[in-house]
Amino acid sequence: MIPYYFDNSSTTLVKPPSVAEGVAYAIHNFANAGRAFYDNAMAAGREIYYTRAKIAKLIGIDDPFNVAFTSSFTDGLNLLTASLLEDGASVITTRSEHNSVLRPLYLKKCAVSYLDCDSDGRVRPENFNSTNFRAHAASGTRFMFLNHASNVTGAVSDAQSFRKLCNDAGIALILDVSQTFGHIPVDADCADIFVFTGHKGLFGPQGTGGIIINGSFDLRVARTGGTGDHSFEPLQPMTMPDVFEAGTHNTPGIYGLGKGVDFITETGIDNIRRKESDLTLLFIDELRGIPGIRLYGGVDSTDPGERVPVVSLNIGNISSAELSLYLWEKYEISTRPGVHCAPLLHKHLGTAEQGAVRFSFSYFNTDDEIRYAANALRQASREFGFTKGD
Amino acid sequence: MIPYYFDNSSTTLVKPPSVAEGVAYAIHNFANAGRAFYDNAMAAGREIYYTRAKIAKLIGIDDPFNVAFTSSFTDGLNLLTASLLEDGASVITTRSEHNSVLRPLYLKKCAVSYLDCDSDGRVRPENFNSTNFRAHAASGTRFMFLNHASNVTGAVSDAQSFRKLCNDAGIALILDVSQTFGHIPVDADCADIFVFTGHKGLFGPQGTGGIIINGSFDLRVARTGGTGDHSFEPLQPMTMPDVFEAGTHNTPGIYGLGKGVDFITETGIDNIRRKESDLTLLFIDELRGIPGIRLYGGVDSTDPGERVPVVSLNIGNISSAELSLYLWEKYEISTRPGVHCAPLLHKHLGTAEQGAVRFSFSYFNTDDEIRYAANALRQASREFGFTKGD
Repeated sequence: MIPYYFDNSSTTLVKPPSVAEGVAYAIHNFANAGRAFYDNAMAAGREIYYTRAKIAKLIGIDDPFNVAFTSSFTDGLNLLTASLLEDGASVITTRSEHNSVLRPLYLKKCAVSYLDCDSDGRVRPENFNSTNFRAHAASGTRFMFLNHASNVTGAVSDAQSFRKLCNDAGIALILDVSQTFGHIPVDADCADIFVFTGHKGLFGPQGTGGIIINGSFDLRVARTGGTGDHSFEPLQPMTMPDVFEAGTHNTPGIYGLGKGVDFITETGIDNIRRKESDLTLLFIDELRGIPGIRLYGGVDSTDPGERVPVVSLNIGNISSAELSLYLWEKYEISTRPGVHCAPLLHKHLGTAEQGAVRFSFSYFNTDDEIRYAANALRQASREFGFTKGD
Repeated sequence: MIPYYFDNSSTTLVKPPSVAEGVAYAIHNFANAGRAFYDNAMAAGREIYYTRAKIAKLIGIDDPFNVAFTSSFTDGLNLLTASLLEDGASVITTRSEHNSVLRPLYLKKCAVSYLDCDSDGRVRPENFNSTNFRAHAASGTRFMFLNHASNVTGAVSDAQSFRKLCNDAGIALILDVSQTFGHIPVDADCADIFVFTGHKGLFGPQGTGGIIINGSFDLRVARTGGTGDHSFEPLQPMTMPDVFEAGTHNTPGIYGLGKGVDFITETGIDNIRRKESDLTLLFIDELRGIPGIRLYGGVDSTDPGERVPVVSLNIGNISSAELSLYLWEKYEISTRPGVHCAPLLHKHLGTAEQGAVRFSFSYFNTDDEIRYAANALRQASREFGFTKGD
């Protein structure tokens, strides 16, 4: 176990042991899925299917073949935009998105209409009605891209309400569940398409992620190559999941991801959510009164049920890099400084220059670790010269 | 160990133990490379760099940053074509290519000029001179795509000579080293750009591969997202390796790949080549005189030094699927039937319908396994009713 690891929004480093064991087992036992009859190849195909089925069940969709695997969230979002969008397409998104959403839209030269955040960084559906929402939809707008939770503030969006706004305007909602899947319930009714990462809340290894299609869409092939069948066709089939899955699968990664999902299912997403919420509330509580400390995302005013376990903070005007380095060097505490690939949100929060120090927790963190971290911040505040009233 | 595993062209299932051990270690110890100061994140970045350096050294290029990682060969080739080629670009390739090369060219709507194979499936540079080679280059042709060895016949192309033909015509050679890297020496002078897979000859896990740039090219961003730095730029930098590497790395996979490359370096590529060549020659020798057997790729007439350890065969007109299934069910021998994602080559060989049963060996196969396989084929020939003279 790595103690004081608080960078779980970036990757969950502490995993259930079954994940790495599973990956190692897969490397020695699963060959290349596809057209061959021997057990090790058939087993690879079967295990990939089982992982699809586990993910489909976790989110509540019927057909495991509507889960396609990609090498990361970024890979998934790029494939999806290449598959769905014409160059220059009009789309809606928000200022709280990660660069893995924003940049693929820039790459496709999209005409982007941004929904604004509140002062706490949250995008609220109650600020919109069918009229002012439609005002964001240029003629021909077919998709909205929304993160289910911000990787900076941890604020969870009310995806169902956004989906209703979208669908009423003939728009499909594409939901970035990087920060929610595995942390809180993510239900099929939240979105029309989900893009996920494997190595965060789902406890899979890095190198995994995927796309979940919850409806009927015209999908163009965006990456192509060998598929082991239909070899005389010029491209692979344009149906799920093949449309996104050319080439050899990351079978060990996908198998390990399946083990991570098993852990979530066995532990229970509600138990995970409760524990992570308790850790986050304890942390916020412990931080109260530390001179100079600033928390982002309206942590005080927000229902704890509307947060994933992410808290970004600063002390005075200390650079986030300096504070993060101090926490590592003096306390061996792992955090992530900077702007967390969310440039528009940090501009909105006024932290484009300073960045923020992000603490993000997982089910494997403990109350003792939280208190240790809060104490380290208390010491930091003192050492950096802050006193009561700052 | 999995015995009688002869599908190494598809994936090397038997790996050095250090590979899976390394991947499991990485899952528990390496966080997300990028802008953070704590050891587990810094270590991830460092280990990714070490693997670049190992691969650069194996191929003989100076700058490790000219090695970019992708999630597979297919991913690499798609990124490369998206980065280098305009839609509809004129390119040269051969009829012996894998669909992971052909289909990305079709996807880009390329005007493709194919070099023909000889009757044995080999593309020979000595059939071309500057005049008839240039005849294949439409005005504006900038790239030729060539496999270093066929995944069906195992025939190695004389890449250096093709590179000279290309470069004299102002064309850069992009070499598919899926079937050669780790099996035979692959030297920097073979090509201007290399695309490789990690999970075959290099013994890495599935989910790994990459692009090696050996020269100066204008690279456009083809996949974009979070990079951990330059967060306020609309896209990531267009320099190697960032131009191809948006999103979280498959750090465990890359670390495991590094362990595979270590094994190759420690064993010696010449020792690997010699052993694999001996296994292949023994197999071909053992097959002589089996009634009805047909081998593809001119194995009798070809210098063994010009082959990777791949032998495709049929017995009479028995479907390749039927023979492959027979070998598995009766002898637990793992082979791959069908057309091996190489439709044009199988058409050329007259095996588009029948396919072929492919045996592909690795350093971990043994003489005893080879004799066992040859004996199984002898029995198959008898059971399927073939007699001397067939």
